[in-house]
Amino acid sequence: MAPTATFVAKSPNFPLPIPNASRPQLPASLRLALPRHLSFAVAGRRSSVARRAAAASCSLIEPDGGRLVDVVAPEGPAREALRREAAGCPQIRLSRIDLEWVHVLSEGWASPLGGFMREAEFLQTLHFSCLRLGDGSVVNMSLPIVLAIDDAQKRAIGDRRKVALVDARDKPVAILSDIEIYKHNKEERIARTWGTTAPGLPYVEEAITKAGNWLIGGDLEVIERIKYNDGLDQYRLSPAELREEFSRRDADAVFAFQLRNPVHNGHALLMTDTRRRLLEMGYRNPVLLLHPLGGYTKADDVPLHWRMKQHEKVLEDGVLNPETTVVAIFPSPMHYAGPTEVQWHAKSRINAGANFYIVGRDPAGMSHPIEKRDLYDADHGKKVLGMAPGLERLNILPFKVAAYDKKQQKMAFFDPSRPQDFLFISGTKMRTLAKNREDPPDGFMCPGGWKVLVDYYDSVTPQETNRSREAVPA
Amino acid sequence: MAPTATFVAKSPNFPLPIPNASRPQLPASLRLALPRHLSFAVAGRRSSVARRAAAASCSLIEPDGGRLVDVVAPEGPAREALRREAAGCPQIRLSRIDLEWVHVLSEGWASPLGGFMREAEFLQTLHFSCLRLGDGSVVNMSLPIVLAIDDAQKRAIGDRRKVALVDARDKPVAILSDIEIYKHNKEERIARTWGTTAPGLPYVEEAITKAGNWLIGGDLEVIERIKYNDGLDQYRLSPAELREEFSRRDADAVFAFQLRNPVHNGHALLMTDTRRRLLEMGYRNPVLLLHPLGGYTKADDVPLHWRMKQHEKVLEDGVLNPETTVVAIFPSPMHYAGPTEVQWHAKSRINAGANFYIVGRDPAGMSHPIEKRDLYDADHGKKVLGMAPGLERLNILPFKVAAYDKKQQKMAFFDPSRPQDFLFISGTKMRTLAKNREDPPDGFMCPGGWKVLVDYYDSVTPQETNRSREAVPA
Repeated sequence: MAPTATFVAKSPNFPLPIPNASRPQLPASLRLALPRHLSFAVAGRRSSVARRAAAASCSLIEPDGGRLVDVVAPEGPAREALRREAAGCPQIRLSRIDLEWVHVLSEGWASPLGGFMREAEFLQTLHFSCLRLGDGSVVNMSLPIVLAIDDAQKRAIGDRRKVALVDARDKPVAILSDIEIYKHNKEERIARTWGTTAPGLPYVEEAITKAGNWLIGGDLEVIERIKYNDGLDQYRLSPAELREEFSRRDADAVFAFQLRNPVHNGHALLMTDTRRRLLEMGYRNPVLLLHPLGGYTKADDVPLHWRMKQHEKVLEDGVLNPETTVVAIFPSPMHYAGPTEVQWHAKSRINAGANFYIVGRDPAGMSHPIEKRDLYDADHGKKVLGMAPGLERLNILPFKVAAYDKKQQKMAFFDPSRPQDFLFISGTKMRTLAKNREDPPDGFMCPGGWKVLVDYYDSVTPQETNRSREAVPA
Repeated sequence: MAPTATFVAKSPNFPLPIPNASRPQLPASLRLALPRHLSFAVAGRRSSVARRAAAASCSLIEPDGGRLVDVVAPEGPAREALRREAAGCPQIRLSRIDLEWVHVLSEGWASPLGGFMREAEFLQTLHFSCLRLGDGSVVNMSLPIVLAIDDAQKRAIGDRRKVALVDARDKPVAILSDIEIYKHNKEERIARTWGTTAPGLPYVEEAITKAGNWLIGGDLEVIERIKYNDGLDQYRLSPAELREEFSRRDADAVFAFQLRNPVHNGHALLMTDTRRRLLEMGYRNPVLLLHPLGGYTKADDVPLHWRMKQHEKVLEDGVLNPETTVVAIFPSPMHYAGPTEVQWHAKSRINAGANFYIVGRDPAGMSHPIEKRDLYDADHGKKVLGMAPGLERLNILPFKVAAYDKKQQKMAFFDPSRPQDFLFISGTKMRTLAKNREDPPDGFMCPGGWKVLVDYYDSVTPQETNRSREAVPA
């Protein structure tokens, strides 16, 4: 008998891995307190605060899929059992960027995604920037969160159903189970994510070009919380911890500001103005999540620890109100994928409790790697964000470009009726000034913050600062 | 006063053009009857049939957006007024492919899209393969249906709100009103549509590379029904006419088969088997829409009028049952964009009344233009179609590859338990045989159909047949 045509009636179910409901114990190292006036949120306030948060957090926006993924094993026998199991699995060594994605997945920034993508999730991300859940609802998911392996690794895995993910020193970090291995069509992944395949995209060169020709997806279980031991771990608050912090502060609106650049007074104006507007809209206590990106950035961006120093100074100098500002690190690596990536930046902040998202000109954009133009239309990020499936619950706050108002001698929103009064100081210009130890106009950035920037450029050799590719700010 | 940040709460409304509710009068030329035994559906049966259809058509699947777009002006004063108005508008001359898209839009294949895309629709198509309607619902829309203009045309339009679209002889065809002009980022359009920017994509070379750097969107009003005067217009049934035909035949299920290649007995087996299965599922009268694509195809595909001759022979030879088969031409041009395009092929057939869609291996696929591999994974089309937003109502029918069974001496579904018995005859192989006047194995294609194919290759010069790019079948 010849086989007959297979009939598959359309099913809306592409079930995602079921998240582990257990909460991790926080390591003692996260309980370091910062000077209160800085108002950097501190990880690990989990005793009475946690109880209060549990009662109050119902006022925050729900995470995607209704529940935050948390796949870090609880301290104790379960964790030890996982560690022992990992020792018996085929091993995949994680790159720094892979480890950042494990971090992102483990804490639920990508909820309801509970592990590296299988093919059904990968294809939905590439084609639709969203995932359909078992109940037919849709969550946004615009960046592929995938793990590449090569032919030899694939052969070594054979028909095993679980693999151990290990760090650079071969220490087991996690187990990926119920695995699925599928083709890594790099060209298609790049074209659909960036809208170009031009050589010179930073993330592509760093993480894709030399990666293996297979992707491995599965359910993630992480042995212990991801730490970097770089002096900044206490700022790496998980979405659950941020939600607790917002509840502790009794926030009735949370507005998130993603950045990967030093904060200048134009940013500060925007954030302050946003709070004023939210108060006018009737919110009682809008809280700002100032959320610098902490994962991979391209070589000519200011490194994370210098940016964190700069942000500290900005708060010290009173440019932002510490009572209504939470500063924490967003652990994701950066793709520089413009309108596609800004959706990820917004979606992940829903999971951290933000119901307002501030979007600027050309978010996650950069110069075209080989043509003399910006890679993305400066307005597309904002437009795409406003139309993205799965982000309907999020309030998008677009803003006009702030520039230096020579008349008022401060940063102000650009007034098109008197363009001659405004000076645009781009990221490139700002960095060039700092490199050359030239001062920006008074009122561009608080003096303490500017000094950090100058110190940074003093600390690096001229060769290191003289990189060809400059980012478009924001 | 400096301008303040603009607050825009997220709105789910990106209203699409309101379709013209009026129905066109059919030109008399479409009322030609074909020999009944061929069972080619004939355009223009609109008198008593139309009334009956109106009563019965409620059992067919609803068009996307709830109502078929129809923007062809009714015969009479309205049409004449439109023609006069067109004479006073700036003119855009349409290419052959542009005209095919006007045709597609005018009859509602892309419902609820009522004209060439404005930027909001273009961006949603590129990023999400779907459009969100005013009521929050989502319809699939995977291919950009756009009209390009160059700098000089943009200047000539100036701040006019309407333009006339004219054919190659400058005869007005349509008016585009409430226009929006926006940048045509070709690289991004190509990368996001095809998942590659490699040179040599047929549609790109034909319709994008040399096109203007701007896109113009707006609401379409077409002066009279699009005709090609190539002897095939009577097969170009509109979605409304197809719905009438299905209702006339009292179909309770309609299954669509898209093709751009000659029909062989493997296809026939599949279509026959599908009907049998649908009957088993409890449908009383499933009707097949055999729907060859009639718009632009690449140079080495068999031209439309030869394919139509071949399809006629297949029906004459009794390979398919004329009582339960409707053959008509789908007017869309071909992108060869694999998983992205198959969604368009499926979505447009919903609008024509189909609630089942047959999908094969590597639909709308082709060889990679510069690498030695297929451009798309052969299974991705089927997978993506099964997950595509806006196609939830459509039943997807994947099928196994049919091959020539040497034991049974006929086309049969491949049986993996006895692979040695099967001979795979690819599109390339089939065309090579026909070119060389060699016979395929008995039972591969009905003799009348095969003769048409041989006649076609006899009719063209050797240079024309010796093209380098070969399509993957289906």
